[in-house]
Amino acid sequence: MEILVTYDVETITREGQRRLRRVAKVCEGMGQRVQKSVFEVVCTPAELVLLEAELRQEINLTTDSIRFYRLPQGSFQRASHLGAAARPAHGGPLIF
Amino acid sequence: MEILVTYDVETITREGQRRLRRVAKVCEGMGQRVQKSVFEVVCTPAELVLLEAELRQEINLTTDSIRFYRLPQGSFQRASHLGAAARPAHGGPLIF
Repeated sequence: MEILVTYDVETITREGQRRLRRVAKVCEGMGQRVQKSVFEVVCTPAELVLLEAELRQEINLTTDSIRFYRLPQGSFQRASHLGAAARPAHGGPLIF
Repeated sequence: MEILVTYDVETITREGQRRLRRVAKVCEGMGQRVQKSVFEVVCTPAELVLLEAELRQEINLTTDSIRFYRLPQGSFQRASHLGAAARPAHGGPLIF
């Protein structure tokens, strides 16, 4: 499955900044960052359930928002892009 | 077509902040904002070409980044969501 994960985390408070770092950390463990708050994740349905559960625990459900878009295979490769940022290499090693 | 538009605009400089506002403005004219830097756009292929051209003019190609994901019809409705933010009503009137 190709899942695009996008998020908005409130960062006015220190607690919000902490949540933002934790959300990014969880996503980094599963996918490729393509923008500050956008990750491309290639995973199984079971891994998606786990990802959603982990992220649900990290955010404040009142102020933060995370969205999951299920894309057909090949969508990440076909995405078009303007400007900065490198093309992520899915299937390659994740570098932290 | 359903196009998910995501962007990162450098906002350290005043000029960057101005670009961010202009990018948001262009996207607001075409779609529904679902997060700070994520828009769902329902458009024709011709409108997509126009949107990309308009956005290309607004950004700094060295520091900013805009991505366009082409989704199958119905993907916006099927997207799952955690936390804050309302479900956008595609097909309804755009409210500015």
